[in-house]
Amino acid sequence: MSYANLADLLSFSNPVFRSYLVCNSVLVLKVLGVAPLIGRHRFAKKIFLSPEDAKMIPGAKVADNDPDIERCRRAHLNDIENIPLFFTAALGYLLTNPEPTLAINLMRAYTAARIAHTFVYAVVVVPQPARFIAFGIGYVITGYMAVSTILKFF
Amino acid sequence: MSYANLADLLSFSNPVFRSYLVCNSVLVLKVLGVAPLIGRHRFAKKIFLSPEDAKMIPGAKVADNDPDIERCRRAHLNDIENIPLFFTAALGYLLTNPEPTLAINLMRAYTAARIAHTFVYAVVVVPQPARFIAFGIGYVITGYMAVSTILKFF
Amino acid sequence: MSYANLADLLSFSNPVFRSYLVCNSVLVLKVLGVAPLIGRHRFAKKIFLSPEDAKMIPGAKVADNDPDIERCRRAHLNDIENIPLFFTAALGYLLTNPEPTLAINLMRAYTAARIAHTFVYAVVVVPQPARFIAFGIGYVITGYMAVSTILKFF
Repeated sequence: MSYANLADLLSFSNPVFRSYLVCNSVLVLKVLGVAPLIGRHRFAKKIFLSPEDAKMIPGAKVADNDPDIERCRRAHLNDIENIPLFFTAALGYLLTNPEPTLAINLMRAYTAARIAHTFVYAVVVVPQPARFIAFGIGYVITGYMAVSTILKFF
Repeated sequence: MSYANLADLLSFSNPVFRSYLVCNSVLVLKVLGVAPLIGRHRFAKKIFLSPEDAKMIPGAKVADNDPDIERCRRAHLNDIENIPLFFTAALGYLLTNPEPTLAINLMRAYTAARIAHTFVYAVVVVPQPARFIAFGIGYVITGYMAVSTILKFF
Repeated sequence: MSYANLADLLSFSNPVFRSYLVCNSVLVLKVLGVAPLIGRHRFAKKIFLSPEDAKMIPGAKVADNDPDIERCRRAHLNDIENIPLFFTAALGYLLTNPEPTLAINLMRAYTAARIAHTFVYAVVVVPQPARFIAFGIGYVITGYMAVSTILKFF
């Protein structure tokens, strides 16, 4: 199999590579954004996980069963179960020399789906299948990118 | 210290780099594969973590103490505690210009060990030390790669 | 916008790139180091999460509510919520052609802050705001790197 020139793919003149860098960074900020969502509930409800945290606030207690906090923590966990996989899968996919419009739209769709996932899970609870669809879009895109990479380089 | 030419290492003609891309993508698919393992138990047992999920299925309930589901979730968590570290450690290691046969076999061994880890943890429960060995192989390989990278570039 | 030459940035002669590889690997080893912290408590207290683990040790039991073990597990979880984001954010930031001294010191500060985070969370429990400050330094650096990347490549 012949390959494209790697230096052309990993290049600032390749719009797919620039889009990869931007989508990654937007996703980084999105995951960082879950921390204040959790913190807001913790300080409002005075519920913490570690005794040294509860000592900061008079009347605070230690618990791990508040529904709002645990919901945000599940959104956070789902992010870290998925988004680092995208960083890696999308890099491999980018190196398969994909059609640029498709590649850029897949990366944007992934990013939008993960933002929507956090929104319907941890900001405004939207009935299913809203979260299932948001999760599924990201899941299918990541899988497609990983399979494309294997088929190209195996 | 002299370095190899980076363009030769990050090159499609470098079999170590192609192996890195393939192993990463196999690992991405492996982690993605844990989600249906968890979902299968959730729908069979009608046990979910979020009320909006339980509302989809008549008779479903919200709980976080089912042994089969929690076992799969622990396998998933162990993946994300380890596999993103490999993506990074193996990239650094690849850039140390390692002996190609060793490098390729280490990456394949890591990938096989993580697949075995999921299998003995979440598919068919195998008595210890099966999981301990699978975890340990991946752990030692990741540590070796990180140490090699530091020794080369510090 | 004009860009620096990518081959000059991703180069062994770029001290920022070498620092990136070293900091990443130190962080990999730091996260790996949490596993023996957890294991030490598990074997000393004979408390495990999976029945097949408890079967290895006479008198061991299955539980998930030991304060020392759960504290180490929270430190581990916080690592994986944050450190893979740094790997990605710092790569994008590196490609913005940052001032080298600033970039190297940001990466070293991040690495030191995460080591301190683990220390005050899981090794010697230090009253707040010690952990809050350690977390915050890493959080702000990651966010700054992601924003810099977006501003450069969007």
